[in-house]
Amino acid sequence: MTTIAILGATGYTALELIKILLRHPNAEITALTSREDTRPAGQVHQSLSGRLNLSLENLTPGEIASRAECVFSCLPHTASAQIVPELLQYGCKVVDFSADYRLDSAESFEKWYEVEHPDPQRLGKVPYGLPELFRKDIIGTDLIANPGCYPTSAILPLVPLLEVGLIEPNDIIIDSKSGVSGAGRKPKLGTLYTECNESISAYGVGTHRHTPEIAQIIARSCKTQMPQVIFTPHLTPMDRGILTTAYSKPVKNVSKDDVLDVLRKKYENEYFVKVVEYLPATKDVSGTNFVHITARVVGSRIITVSAIDNLIKGASGAAVQNFNLLFGYAETTALV
Amino acid sequence: MTTIAILGATGYTALELIKILLRHPNAEITALTSREDTRPAGQVHQSLSGRLNLSLENLTPGEIASRAECVFSCLPHTASAQIVPELLQYGCKVVDFSADYRLDSAESFEKWYEVEHPDPQRLGKVPYGLPELFRKDIIGTDLIANPGCYPTSAILPLVPLLEVGLIEPNDIIIDSKSGVSGAGRKPKLGTLYTECNESISAYGVGTHRHTPEIAQIIARSCKTQMPQVIFTPHLTPMDRGILTTAYSKPVKNVSKDDVLDVLRKKYENEYFVKVVEYLPATKDVSGTNFVHITARVVGSRIITVSAIDNLIKGASGAAVQNFNLLFGYAETTALV
Amino acid sequence: MTTIAILGATGYTALELIKILLRHPNAEITALTSREDTRPAGQVHQSLSGRLNLSLENLTPGEIASRAECVFSCLPHTASAQIVPELLQYGCKVVDFSADYRLDSAESFEKWYEVEHPDPQRLGKVPYGLPELFRKDIIGTDLIANPGCYPTSAILPLVPLLEVGLIEPNDIIIDSKSGVSGAGRKPKLGTLYTECNESISAYGVGTHRHTPEIAQIIARSCKTQMPQVIFTPHLTPMDRGILTTAYSKPVKNVSKDDVLDVLRKKYENEYFVKVVEYLPATKDVSGTNFVHITARVVGSRIITVSAIDNLIKGASGAAVQNFNLLFGYAETTALV
Amino acid sequence: MTTIAILGATGYTALELIKILLRHPNAEITALTSREDTRPAGQVHQSLSGRLNLSLENLTPGEIASRAECVFSCLPHTASAQIVPELLQYGCKVVDFSADYRLDSAESFEKWYEVEHPDPQRLGKVPYGLPELFRKDIIGTDLIANPGCYPTSAILPLVPLLEVGLIEPNDIIIDSKSGVSGAGRKPKLGTLYTECNESISAYGVGTHRHTPEIAQIIARSCKTQMPQVIFTPHLTPMDRGILTTAYSKPVKNVSKDDVLDVLRKKYENEYFVKVVEYLPATKDVSGTNFVHITARVVGSRIITVSAIDNLIKGASGAAVQNFNLLFGYAETTALV
Repeated sequence: MTTIAILGATGYTALELIKILLRHPNAEITALTSREDTRPAGQVHQSLSGRLNLSLENLTPGEIASRAECVFSCLPHTASAQIVPELLQYGCKVVDFSADYRLDSAESFEKWYEVEHPDPQRLGKVPYGLPELFRKDIIGTDLIANPGCYPTSAILPLVPLLEVGLIEPNDIIIDSKSGVSGAGRKPKLGTLYTECNESISAYGVGTHRHTPEIAQIIARSCKTQMPQVIFTPHLTPMDRGILTTAYSKPVKNVSKDDVLDVLRKKYENEYFVKVVEYLPATKDVSGTNFVHITARVVGSRIITVSAIDNLIKGASGAAVQNFNLLFGYAETTALV
Repeated sequence: MTTIAILGATGYTALELIKILLRHPNAEITALTSREDTRPAGQVHQSLSGRLNLSLENLTPGEIASRAECVFSCLPHTASAQIVPELLQYGCKVVDFSADYRLDSAESFEKWYEVEHPDPQRLGKVPYGLPELFRKDIIGTDLIANPGCYPTSAILPLVPLLEVGLIEPNDIIIDSKSGVSGAGRKPKLGTLYTECNESISAYGVGTHRHTPEIAQIIARSCKTQMPQVIFTPHLTPMDRGILTTAYSKPVKNVSKDDVLDVLRKKYENEYFVKVVEYLPATKDVSGTNFVHITARVVGSRIITVSAIDNLIKGASGAAVQNFNLLFGYAETTALV
Repeated sequence: MTTIAILGATGYTALELIKILLRHPNAEITALTSREDTRPAGQVHQSLSGRLNLSLENLTPGEIASRAECVFSCLPHTASAQIVPELLQYGCKVVDFSADYRLDSAESFEKWYEVEHPDPQRLGKVPYGLPELFRKDIIGTDLIANPGCYPTSAILPLVPLLEVGLIEPNDIIIDSKSGVSGAGRKPKLGTLYTECNESISAYGVGTHRHTPEIAQIIARSCKTQMPQVIFTPHLTPMDRGILTTAYSKPVKNVSKDDVLDVLRKKYENEYFVKVVEYLPATKDVSGTNFVHITARVVGSRIITVSAIDNLIKGASGAAVQNFNLLFGYAETTALV
Repeated sequence: MTTIAILGATGYTALELIKILLRHPNAEITALTSREDTRPAGQVHQSLSGRLNLSLENLTPGEIASRAECVFSCLPHTASAQIVPELLQYGCKVVDFSADYRLDSAESFEKWYEVEHPDPQRLGKVPYGLPELFRKDIIGTDLIANPGCYPTSAILPLVPLLEVGLIEPNDIIIDSKSGVSGAGRKPKLGTLYTECNESISAYGVGTHRHTPEIAQIIARSCKTQMPQVIFTPHLTPMDRGILTTAYSKPVKNVSKDDVLDVLRKKYENEYFVKVVEYLPATKDVSGTNFVHITARVVGSRIITVSAIDNLIKGASGAAVQNFNLLFGYAETTALV
């Protein structure tokens, strides 16, 4: 049994994480934190009524470490890196949902997040928590940068094609469609029901912070410099799910089956990645840690389509997958 | 041509009102007010881009009156009654969307709204702006209390049955389901997309402020004292629409056709009220000023079902209907 | 390990059942049937891709029995009772999702379903699979009538009040709102996205077949004759969830707390029933086997509100709960 | 006053067309046709209850022509071209919603639609009914090919850039997201509420029949051969709306303002096309004939985003706009 603290427990990723961990035979949630909301968990999230006898608390790093071997941080960027070093010193293992440890350089972080990084010396040494690509780095570490939701959906279909040199790294267009839960639980005009419902829109065109994260993994997987990535997220009228349609340029003539074969070979032993023939819908993976991927060849382009649940494979499911790896549990525990 | 000011122009009812008035051949919008948001109308409401060359302004009653013959007030309760008397003095006609002039007594207002009424001496003298029931009172007046959305949907099917003495006024149960736009455009946790979507819930059980408004019209239509009304509103995952299912007790044995006949007779000359055989859906009237009503008899109860668009017949459409009556235009102008 | 067959595996309840059973440590799905669709499970339901290596098959009762100790029948009414007797003879235990064994008399069945019952002699002897009320009857039997979704949501809050004699059994009004998945997966105009979305409507007013099922349990719980039940279902624009708002008449003056106390006492040891203070939303229980119940007293009425997930507590979750009881597994297995 | 027949009046575009024409001061609907459904209009479409005293009829071309000066054909492809020639002979003017007269060659039609064209000699001579681009051709003709919904949203932002030679015609990627109403009103598994809701998916990748229509207009606007167009439509969980995000390659360095200036100049006198600074949402134009367009420059790509209501500017609104041009009414009549 591993004791667990969840920092920033008021939001949707924390809620989803709690629900998954309540099914985990080896996990015991012992602390939930919030700086402002210290009500019982079942009041903060009515769906937890009677299922978890804990209140949210405003705890110090020492208090957290005295209660938990593993800490999941759902804090916003920079807030996470302000507390993570101390937690590591106390001997906790940490899965960080924020963007703080995803980028390799403080320079890149500061350019995109427009704020100084609180813990820059760790950057470049923290494994990126996508087990399907970086499992070896994850096992045996004590801090994991849990991937962004868009990057997870964009990277998984593209990396195999990049690794075998099938597509040009510098001419990739990524058009993603996400459910509204990705925007968080803080009341804002733009995420009101009556603003989002019956409407789809692009946002953060050319400026979304997941762009450098995607570019970095592309660069790593084909050992090039940071490529130009065109990434356009869209706000879609649904709670959860990300569908990513990516347009890449093959370096030679290929067929659909050629592309699917590369994908299948890469993921043949990966339980959570399904390479499929049909065009996947986000509903096919809703509420699960699965990724469905397919590909088509149209004219001079490869079109890959991938579907994930942004709150699970795109956040809390991936985090539990990482947790399982960190603590030696079967990787799929609580995720089937 | 009548010049028009709209007070409190940032919300959904104001937006809907503007859209209707842009189609009105005899209306010219000359002022939009807001105390805080003074951007161009097309920025406050992107759907007005390039359609209305006005910015919102923080105007005094005198300034408003100097620009407009008719004022639609979309201000919140008490804010409206603080400015209406002065507008009337300046000679404006006013259609008030707030609850301020709907109840007949300051006592009732203060009980339900828990605040002192700013203009109590007018209460009881302002016509209730449901033309299908009170057209005569509306014509020739200068101030109209535009009805609440729930009361409109609840009252229209019940009043004809009460007027002919077919049902008991003291044993009526009203179960209403409303789209989220009824909750306004101010960011709140409870109206976030991810809270409302894929979910229905009751709220304000026994405490909703439309209850006394419904009771008052019931009392008036059968000349009794204020009856007990059981009214339960529900928040439904859709933008707009109210469906009201009301359970009433007939005083004698009746058939479905008996009930439908009473309804048909009452509304046979009303363009906007359709008494139908089928069970209406809110989509049948969405985007229109129509009301669809039907009835069934089940065991010892009459069940009436009515559907309206809460933003149109339940607010801005009714307001324009009243405006047409006030200024002598054909009642359906801009509403077909 | 118990081997399992699922009959009629193309629909939503079967899909949900499969997903739950894939998490069950003691269940192995060995057969899926359909008369018409014999594709692999992962093609019939894309969300099962790569998770279940079975195709649907058109099997005889003997073939089914040779493969499975427990049979879940998701067949339509009368189709189920045509095959159940033979399955029982072969020694299978059966959980029947259809209405075939829910009513106590063939007369009542034939009145509401307008068709002759294929297995009338069993009626009245099959336990109604609501463990919170009839657990003793369920354990040790071989056939269970899995309850209807609406009855589950309606009965659970009312039965405790009826059992203690707090409300009149003959004056109950039940207003229910269900997601569209309750209407099944067969293409029909009325359940197209563009017909249901942004719309709520009543249907089956006075004629819905769950009415006698509710009445029967009410009669049983207060040992009266079949009462009149006014039951109005509504089609709500959401995938899943039922919210039931029920209006009942107390026989004496009661407070909200009196009513909540009766409910709490009845369900204090029931894991899946949560008596709550707040007004529950269907989202609070979405994807779970939980029921959230609360109550209010308004004027001369008690208003109870209950929320379930129609596909889980209203169908497949309850079925697995029954399965666990039948085969001696912990009742909550695979359901947390 | 112009008399009007609508062929194939059971679907969503016909319904929307009827609603618009009911507001048109110079249009009188005199015939609605269907081969199978001959119920009153208010039963086929409940939202028309009491608004239009016509039943659908199975009429011959002669009967249609005897009743109507203008015919809107909402028939499927090939069904339309089987009847249009005769209607033209009778002297009717025709606005054809089908794809039958959109493509310039029978060869292209037969390749994409996999069926012989019933009226091939007219191809290449029928104006494409996008008044913003082809107004001159429309005025004075007797048959108009009303554009496809996707092409309208894709073409309007791209054509101005192509006309001034700013982008390469052969490297355009069009990623479109449409509401479900575009899929029609015929019951199919794929358009059931419970299949589409809470889900987004790509479909028809590389094979959608609107591709050659887009390519043809691109070719025409920059006087090149038919270019390669990568077009990916997505089914989005909403009733109506199309958002098109198009990625094109500028032939030289440009800024966002350069691109917006080209668009503004092209459309400065077009009432229905608004070139905006913000990223438009489909909701901004929902229920209207407006198009909102913006552009961004990201890396080596221009990203244009356009929003329309697929049933109005993408179908019935455009059709009425064309009707107004054909019969000499003000182009915006009934469309504000």
